[in-house]
Amino acid sequence: MKTLKIGVAGLGRLGLVHVDNIYKMKGVELTAVSNLDEQVNEQVKKKYNVPNAYSNYEEMLENTELDAVCIVTPSGYHTEHILLALEKDLHVFCEKPIGLEVNDIKKTITHIDKSDKVFHLGFMRRYDEDYLYAKEMIDSGQIGEISLIRSYSIDPIEGLDSFVDFAKKSPSGGLFLDMSVHDIDVIRWLTKSEVSTVWATGINKAAPELTSLNELELGTVTMKLNNGVTALLVAGRTAAHGYHVETEIIGTKGMLRIAASPEKNKVAVFNENGTVRPSSQHFPERFSEAYVNELNDFVRCIRESEQPEVSALDGLRGTEVALACQKSFDENKLIEIEYE
Amino acid sequence: MKTLKIGVAGLGRLGLVHVDNIYKMKGVELTAVSNLDEQVNEQVKKKYNVPNAYSNYEEMLENTELDAVCIVTPSGYHTEHILLALEKDLHVFCEKPIGLEVNDIKKTITHIDKSDKVFHLGFMRRYDEDYLYAKEMIDSGQIGEISLIRSYSIDPIEGLDSFVDFAKKSPSGGLFLDMSVHDIDVIRWLTKSEVSTVWATGINKAAPELTSLNELELGTVTMKLNNGVTALLVAGRTAAHGYHVETEIIGTKGMLRIAASPEKNKVAVFNENGTVRPSSQHFPERFSEAYVNELNDFVRCIRESEQPEVSALDGLRGTEVALACQKSFDENKLIEIEYE
Amino acid sequence: MKTLKIGVAGLGRLGLVHVDNIYKMKGVELTAVSNLDEQVNEQVKKKYNVPNAYSNYEEMLENTELDAVCIVTPSGYHTEHILLALEKDLHVFCEKPIGLEVNDIKKTITHIDKSDKVFHLGFMRRYDEDYLYAKEMIDSGQIGEISLIRSYSIDPIEGLDSFVDFAKKSPSGGLFLDMSVHDIDVIRWLTKSEVSTVWATGINKAAPELTSLNELELGTVTMKLNNGVTALLVAGRTAAHGYHVETEIIGTKGMLRIAASPEKNKVAVFNENGTVRPSSQHFPERFSEAYVNELNDFVRCIRESEQPEVSALDGLRGTEVALACQKSFDENKLIEIEYE
Amino acid sequence: MKTLKIGVAGLGRLGLVHVDNIYKMKGVELTAVSNLDEQVNEQVKKKYNVPNAYSNYEEMLENTELDAVCIVTPSGYHTEHILLALEKDLHVFCEKPIGLEVNDIKKTITHIDKSDKVFHLGFMRRYDEDYLYAKEMIDSGQIGEISLIRSYSIDPIEGLDSFVDFAKKSPSGGLFLDMSVHDIDVIRWLTKSEVSTVWATGINKAAPELTSLNELELGTVTMKLNNGVTALLVAGRTAAHGYHVETEIIGTKGMLRIAASPEKNKVAVFNENGTVRPSSQHFPERFSEAYVNELNDFVRCIRESEQPEVSALDGLRGTEVALACQKSFDENKLIEIEYE
Repeated sequence: MKTLKIGVAGLGRLGLVHVDNIYKMKGVELTAVSNLDEQVNEQVKKKYNVPNAYSNYEEMLENTELDAVCIVTPSGYHTEHILLALEKDLHVFCEKPIGLEVNDIKKTITHIDKSDKVFHLGFMRRYDEDYLYAKEMIDSGQIGEISLIRSYSIDPIEGLDSFVDFAKKSPSGGLFLDMSVHDIDVIRWLTKSEVSTVWATGINKAAPELTSLNELELGTVTMKLNNGVTALLVAGRTAAHGYHVETEIIGTKGMLRIAASPEKNKVAVFNENGTVRPSSQHFPERFSEAYVNELNDFVRCIRESEQPEVSALDGLRGTEVALACQKSFDENKLIEIEYE
Repeated sequence: MKTLKIGVAGLGRLGLVHVDNIYKMKGVELTAVSNLDEQVNEQVKKKYNVPNAYSNYEEMLENTELDAVCIVTPSGYHTEHILLALEKDLHVFCEKPIGLEVNDIKKTITHIDKSDKVFHLGFMRRYDEDYLYAKEMIDSGQIGEISLIRSYSIDPIEGLDSFVDFAKKSPSGGLFLDMSVHDIDVIRWLTKSEVSTVWATGINKAAPELTSLNELELGTVTMKLNNGVTALLVAGRTAAHGYHVETEIIGTKGMLRIAASPEKNKVAVFNENGTVRPSSQHFPERFSEAYVNELNDFVRCIRESEQPEVSALDGLRGTEVALACQKSFDENKLIEIEYE
Repeated sequence: MKTLKIGVAGLGRLGLVHVDNIYKMKGVELTAVSNLDEQVNEQVKKKYNVPNAYSNYEEMLENTELDAVCIVTPSGYHTEHILLALEKDLHVFCEKPIGLEVNDIKKTITHIDKSDKVFHLGFMRRYDEDYLYAKEMIDSGQIGEISLIRSYSIDPIEGLDSFVDFAKKSPSGGLFLDMSVHDIDVIRWLTKSEVSTVWATGINKAAPELTSLNELELGTVTMKLNNGVTALLVAGRTAAHGYHVETEIIGTKGMLRIAASPEKNKVAVFNENGTVRPSSQHFPERFSEAYVNELNDFVRCIRESEQPEVSALDGLRGTEVALACQKSFDENKLIEIEYE
Repeated sequence: MKTLKIGVAGLGRLGLVHVDNIYKMKGVELTAVSNLDEQVNEQVKKKYNVPNAYSNYEEMLENTELDAVCIVTPSGYHTEHILLALEKDLHVFCEKPIGLEVNDIKKTITHIDKSDKVFHLGFMRRYDEDYLYAKEMIDSGQIGEISLIRSYSIDPIEGLDSFVDFAKKSPSGGLFLDMSVHDIDVIRWLTKSEVSTVWATGINKAAPELTSLNELELGTVTMKLNNGVTALLVAGRTAAHGYHVETEIIGTKGMLRIAASPEKNKVAVFNENGTVRPSSQHFPERFSEAYVNELNDFVRCIRESEQPEVSALDGLRGTEVALACQKSFDENKLIEIEYE
């Protein structure tokens, strides 16, 4: 079995998660990394024994050894970086979104479709064992037909300051594009249906400075899907207890809750506070297995010349819906989404 | 301490709960009942040793021994029954709603305001120990400022057939008026704010016959309040596990969930299904203590010449918002509510 | 229905619970209290409008209005107080134990058996809804045959200082006699079998001063019952989270846990500690309903001329087993219990 | 980094878990397997592309490519297989126990001590994230000093028939040696203390045929440790809900429960049974991560010329205590353990 050579672009928090996972994969070599900050490059190069570290993405692509790239650069660069990698005939794993603008995404999809390379979008929740367990229960009819989905993505409050700093430097796209896209993808995945109408609301109390940055502390979206199902989304940045990602599915014969409490582990602590279940504190902790599973699937797809279940179109739809949510919030009205 | 003499009007399911509670109250006599079905009257008379049973409400009011009435008749009669009791100078405990039409309610409130008698509306959740515990945590600032409230009222599926029969005979007013009013009251109570805009959606999958009755299996409402808080409501009629009444409050410093699982008691069962927490099956079980507490408060108010915290205006507001929800669903648009 | 007149002897913490419950019972009058501390007597007399307050138990018994007494005096007086009440031909509700010495208890039982009055022993767990729910599941065969019972009684650490003070003044009889008797009764009640062999161990780490008082911070007992079932007991005085009373029953077809976490209510708090379920803090809170239920049953038994399910013999057996536990701990060996 | 070549001896249920894990390890080659059943050998050879499959352990050891062996053969062969591997100068990972007889284990330890190779005993719970989290809390003083440990190992009832078949063919050593050794190890690991006295009891109700096989359906052990701590053990073979491995640690300042419910994942199901948390069904599922972690640590130890924290002496102590438990049960008396 030929060793697969992968380069990782972007060594931020999530980039380092992918680096670590790729490093540990059998039959795979972490051949290169590219990142602006040369100091980080050196650390990663040393820790993971990486042959090549570049301060420039395009330079990395010149390395003809590479079979695939894993793009974890800032969202604004995704479109460009995907296109460049496809030009070089590389398999591409890319974090969401494919691009910030719908037109950029559509253009990119044209190129992805023309290519015979694997394109894998990082909707990691589809690879999480809890979500997969729920999906199987739903698909096997154990809760009847879906009537409602509720999905929460609330970041821990301890990351708020650094988010405010981050948002001041470069726009995140807003709460819905930054965070709710994962929930939107989960909803589309579980219901096999598209979102037709949305209404978004939001508030800034804990961090009023977010308002001037066009950001929200807490946002909600109510969605009607084509099949009549309603979906309720909550996204936020100030969970005191940790990283709260929860999805509830109400069916005609039963309900499911995925991670109603973001349990860190199976330990319960009985102390002066009461009976306490400690929480997962951040996405690398909560989705550590999912991040491994999605890259394993990426590699499997490459070896077996398949495309992953999650497609570039899923990325487009996620962005289209998230943009509609933002528009609904901005204009305070119901927005009907039209797809081409 | 003078014995307080109370008559109960309406011996349906909830009426019987009140009968039982009043019967057990110290310093109180269950002096009379009125109900159309004479067979039930006889049973109640015998079981509780009630001096007087009437098949007619007005007849009961002629009994000059009475100090107070507890009105648990069908919703369509509430306005009339309240007014008649006030005319007779009786203290009134009445189940929600005060009336089906806003104008009826307003007219009734005028009479209530003129009277010096106690008027108590049956929003029992305000007397539930779980809700009171949460209220106290919120009011003492333990979760910061409220950003979002989510409140569910889902009836057990085993009651669906009898509900369909019931709805065929007399309109319930629809899911929002029938069930969500309790959630609306909780939201107003906890936030001390009014609802300004609503969007309601819904679905009928398990019980398609509900559609022709203008009823919903599952409905959702998204609400914006005057203070910027968003509230999400879910009401339904098909919970497989029991009677699911849950309220979540997200604050800037923490979150609370009241009855995230409708735990029947403190027993966990480990069997072939896994680890199971049995559920409360219906409202008399779930709110048994709250029903006792609210009547105790009614009696206390009478003795101490006070008005209860929950007012007739709360009843008006609940109905106004629920009607707006129904209108939003019927017309599929955002509805802004205007209060006089 | 004749009003039943009850006198309460002993106005300590639990005495006041009974006073409050008796005061609220319909058809019952709290006719008298007796207590050494006259100041407390005055407060209670005033708050509950009690006609008579005595600083002396025997004096109270001279009040010929009384139908029944509720004995909540210190354990060392129980035998005497029961016998005096029986002499006066009163119905007796008495907190455990019937006496500190087996011979005293046996003598008392002789008198109880000769009397036609109701004698009710305060094993309140038999009246707790959680325990009753579990009992019903067991009796209806839902967990098969019982193989093992584990039962915990751990007092909150915040009561430790006052317990140390209390123990310095008058011996509690030790951890097993003071606390495990309730677990022993639960085990006998659920299994309908007697304890044959015990081994007790214990430790003092948090409160070393308990050692010199012949007390334990934490004690455990392993018991073999006549029917082959094993029971594991833990009793303690230093639960950081509250008042932890838990019972587990392992059957051949399933397991039950009663109050695995001493949930104060149905509220979950998500804060910087994680997901928190607040705890019951003390026995009046945890068993508030059970205390009401047992007195209702006492009154019912008086009115219907029945004896309660829980008998004086249950009290004897509980003390015999607890004494064997203490002996096993003192001598560090297996003790076989022989019953007459 | 040199590729490490490992052979796996024994392809039973746990052997296949190790095969799968070794196959996926980077820098490691699954070079050989040995197993009596040639059909299984062929399947494994094919599925994992294993270069060599032997029907005989000694034959496998002749393969000079091997750096290490992973011994998962029946317990009765462990001593012999360890000694043979050490003779060949191989690193050894071996499932518990080191041997069935204390003398065999002592002899083996002499050889292990003389060797400079890594010897790793498969006490996987020490590598489980839940147990590690609890250990860290304990070691950092968060629950004060340990007063009591309770540890359960209950196999799922669905494995009972196959266990009865298995026990008929070859003695398991009894419930304590077969199952409680893991709990014994956890107790020694967490308390850093040795067991001094034990009392064991047990019962056979669900599977009476176990009695003639000298097996138990459910067994309990109460242990006193040198440091005064008491430990309560329950082992069983008939958990209706799945694979129940739970450990509780009561400290002077708080309590911990590891896996009080053997939660399969973070999904809660609300259905006709109530609120259900599905259970882990067997050890490969419950400890999947721990099995990976322990082999990673084995490989790390080899590469870094270290010995793992878990030692051969831990294996000896575990067996000594388990044998004392069995003796206590057989003779129905307290057994004091003396160590050399």
